[in-house]
Amino acid sequence: MSEENRWLLPEGIDEALPEQAQALEALRRQVVDLYNSWGYELVMPPFIEYLDSLLTGTGHDLELQTFTVTDQLSGRLLGVRADMTPQVARIDAHRLRSDLPTRLCYLGTVLNTRPEGFSGTRSPLQVGAELYGHSGIESDVEILSLMLETMRLTGVQNVHVDLGHVGIFRGLARQAGLNGAQEAALFEALQRKAKPEIDAFFDKLSIDDYVEEMLRALSDLNGDATVLKEAGEVLEHAGADVRGALDELTAIARMMEARLPNTPLYFDLAELRGYRYHTGIVFAAFVPGRGQAIAQGGRYDEIGKVFGRARPATGFSADLKTLVALGEQAATAECNAIFAPADGDSDFHQKVFELRAQRERVIHELSGQQGDAKAMGCSRVLVEQGGDWVVEPLD
Amino acid sequence: MSEENRWLLPEGIDEALPEQAQALEALRRQVVDLYNSWGYELVMPPFIEYLDSLLTGTGHDLELQTFTVTDQLSGRLLGVRADMTPQVARIDAHRLRSDLPTRLCYLGTVLNTRPEGFSGTRSPLQVGAELYGHSGIESDVEILSLMLETMRLTGVQNVHVDLGHVGIFRGLARQAGLNGAQEAALFEALQRKAKPEIDAFFDKLSIDDYVEEMLRALSDLNGDATVLKEAGEVLEHAGADVRGALDELTAIARMMEARLPNTPLYFDLAELRGYRYHTGIVFAAFVPGRGQAIAQGGRYDEIGKVFGRARPATGFSADLKTLVALGEQAATAECNAIFAPADGDSDFHQKVFELRAQRERVIHELSGQQGDAKAMGCSRVLVEQGGDWVVEPLD
Repeated sequence: MSEENRWLLPEGIDEALPEQAQALEALRRQVVDLYNSWGYELVMPPFIEYLDSLLTGTGHDLELQTFTVTDQLSGRLLGVRADMTPQVARIDAHRLRSDLPTRLCYLGTVLNTRPEGFSGTRSPLQVGAELYGHSGIESDVEILSLMLETMRLTGVQNVHVDLGHVGIFRGLARQAGLNGAQEAALFEALQRKAKPEIDAFFDKLSIDDYVEEMLRALSDLNGDATVLKEAGEVLEHAGADVRGALDELTAIARMMEARLPNTPLYFDLAELRGYRYHTGIVFAAFVPGRGQAIAQGGRYDEIGKVFGRARPATGFSADLKTLVALGEQAATAECNAIFAPADGDSDFHQKVFELRAQRERVIHELSGQQGDAKAMGCSRVLVEQGGDWVVEPLD
Repeated sequence: MSEENRWLLPEGIDEALPEQAQALEALRRQVVDLYNSWGYELVMPPFIEYLDSLLTGTGHDLELQTFTVTDQLSGRLLGVRADMTPQVARIDAHRLRSDLPTRLCYLGTVLNTRPEGFSGTRSPLQVGAELYGHSGIESDVEILSLMLETMRLTGVQNVHVDLGHVGIFRGLARQAGLNGAQEAALFEALQRKAKPEIDAFFDKLSIDDYVEEMLRALSDLNGDATVLKEAGEVLEHAGADVRGALDELTAIARMMEARLPNTPLYFDLAELRGYRYHTGIVFAAFVPGRGQAIAQGGRYDEIGKVFGRARPATGFSADLKTLVALGEQAATAECNAIFAPADGDSDFHQKVFELRAQRERVIHELSGQQGDAKAMGCSRVLVEQGGDWVVEPLD
């Protein structure tokens, strides 16, 4: 590799220079404080874990997204986290072991082997909140509201939310008698709304016509809240589980409408992102002109089961770097530091100490350095006057 | 793997549950604010990079400590960072490209293949500060002072600092005509103060007696500032580079004494930790009863060279998790949250919103949940009184 490109970063891997790092740090604090004010406690799961533990209960696609290395100490495979949600579920199930509703939040880098979701990056700064121990719709509404509040805080404009429920597709697939492979194939085709493939799929199988019609209808059941009423009619002959899922979705829509009346909520009954481990409602936030979700989440009641302790769970996550980029937070270039001369007595050092304690930025001049006070981003300077050190504006 | 141990973490890998995470987050903010007040700007280097780039100019031991994976996109080897200092040097040399003194700080998880330094962990939360573009001793003194200020801020008590200079050993090795392998072998033996090995080493070589004596003497040249005077005599016939290094160390000791008179400074001329990439003074902070350094640093003027742009550089780093553990920061268990009833009108939701905006922690009751207000860590409750929602203490 030549010297010129030695500093290039791999595709989808980026770093934050001072201005962006400052914006990320500021937003990080605001988000953690927000979650704290809602009762969500910060946890910091490890960056690397035994692969078994990391992937338990999460599905094949997360496995493909996970970098693996061999542990020299144990000889076992380790995985670098590609998603923190399963880690936080493990913490709830095995470390905290509470019977109370438990609210946890987290913020950290995850790595993906390939760019996916979140703006083509392979190293999102994942931030999220999870609520364990409550299966009612109030916890879904709380999580959905907190996701929207996160968008508001970060200054992202024109957010709309797509809502779905994996129980509808799953229930219909069960009603149609599909096996696991068939369900996965149909799911995949529905996600892409690939009509010819869907036709071919049904041609090969003998499924009751009315069930096939309901499955086919899912692709068209998307739009505003009127879709739910329409779905009630289209899915009239669906099983009790499908009807129950639809009722849940309807109740959540009503509660959201009552609490946050102006939220643009859309419904998509073929919307199944997060199928990875979700079991109930699933949702994603979008902004115009950007095909990929900027935040997503849903209910995943069964994930703790593989750790020996199933708890109801609902949560969401987002990439803080994407939110910073979209939020257009005014990056305040700080040019108001105080330049302190290269030499000084002990009073001088005391004064510098005090100024810094008052959150002033004081930059020491270094003997023979390049650049004057202004070049160093200073607007003021520390000077001696009658035996005292005082801060003066730069000429 | 059975369900019982599925949640175990690999050796040397840990995670922070709410109480510790809160302490780490609080200290993180204090440290970043401290560095900011000294003019150090935060950067966030990537967690993973091309291995070539990550290890360039850093030496073999860092390579052994680095987890590697193959990039599916490029087919090239990637490394998970085991040390952020070389990354920050790359950012200074290739991204910022300033001729001015540049002050940068960083904070993030690094991974090591094997436990080393920092309390046996393999995933320290590395925090550090680096000053580029100035080769005088003032920048070394600034970095050393900032390291001590970090210790003070984190509440770590009874810190003492060992100071050395790699130029002394290197200069003597050159004077003795040692080749690279011989220098490394002797260095390693001196580090362990392994007298028999050192004897055997010299038996095999024909080195001028006075040079051998100086090399042997290094092991005994440790203690308070009087060591420097003694070294001046012992190393009287050393080359100009060795004498220069000793003068530099002496000048730094004097400047530290003038600025921070009560700092317990010790000198160890065989102290060579950080030999990895250091070129000038090296230092490490210790506390009683703990053999390993809790912070360390030094000058490494040549690291940017391999990126095509050599700049003088000096810096230090520490593991924030170790500092939190040693600092005995009072973990304030927050039990003063406000419990908000499961149901409420729009005035209720407005009140909750306002309380949270005032940084109050408000926890929503969830219908049918386990645990009352007190169990949920609340000391107050939101109640309706004459049409208004007010905060009342719990009985």
